[in-house]
Amino acid sequence: MRADFINPFIAAAKNVLATMANTTAEAGKPGLKTDRCTWGDVTGVIGLCSPGTSGSMLLSFSKGAILSVVNQMLGEEHDSINEEVADAVGELTNMITGAAKNGLIEKGYKIDMAIPIIIQGKNVQITQIANGPILTVPFTIPGGCFVVEANLVDHK
Amino acid sequence: MRADFINPFIAAAKNVLATMANTTAEAGKPGLKTDRCTWGDVTGVIGLCSPGTSGSMLLSFSKGAILSVVNQMLGEEHDSINEEVADAVGELTNMITGAAKNGLIEKGYKIDMAIPIIIQGKNVQITQIANGPILTVPFTIPGGCFVVEANLVDHK
Repeated sequence: MRADFINPFIAAAKNVLATMANTTAEAGKPGLKTDRCTWGDVTGVIGLCSPGTSGSMLLSFSKGAILSVVNQMLGEEHDSINEEVADAVGELTNMITGAAKNGLIEKGYKIDMAIPIIIQGKNVQITQIANGPILTVPFTIPGGCFVVEANLVDHK
Repeated sequence: MRADFINPFIAAAKNVLATMANTTAEAGKPGLKTDRCTWGDVTGVIGLCSPGTSGSMLLSFSKGAILSVVNQMLGEEHDSINEEVADAVGELTNMITGAAKNGLIEKGYKIDMAIPIIIQGKNVQITQIANGPILTVPFTIPGGCFVVEANLVDHK
């Protein structure tokens, strides 16, 4: 896995938030995930696979960040992470991964997407069985912060 | 999606536990998942996908059940759900899904597997964005209980 596989996810996160929620996301410096827990208050997870590749993408929002994004997306005023907000995190997870697919193809990764799963709660203990490094990128938006975590492993 | 897609997962769970942990699992009656939380104390989740299909499989163990299984598998005496136990849940999730693949192919579902993710904690709020029913099957083993939850959606 080359570290630059993260770039399509960064571009996709910015594009989807700009398009769907009129929100500008500033990306920070990518790093390596070293703990085994969720970063934010709500986290979307999606499996990535093909006959030769497997991995996952996580999208984890602080409460302030996701409420700001969802209220912009839906034109509503949610003040807690309810089912509708969780479903919106699932949609964002789908859309960002879908938007990243073309950039991944250009880098030689042809992937299909599983369905997103949304986990509520900060510091929920999760373990990703990744046979390689998990890259993590922090983003800042007006309402708060979110992170994108991704890993992809070639079996070839 | 036909309801009988669950049968390869039931057979695979029984076979993998018998082979890897010398444990006999009795399957209960399949039902539909209606809540949005983890059933057991530790839960393995794996995404399933192909160009025409997407879904997920969850494997959720009570603490007593997973400690019994892992202690049999590893020949060790774990008394809490630590990182080694979480990793073993990931391995079981991989093995059961891998074993179910052949039966799924016979039913017309050709799937690839993403990487497993393990969530620790009972009643962690999780939402599966499944565009169809999620089937759930309870199992009883000497140390406790576990459930298999699965969904698959054809996009064709």
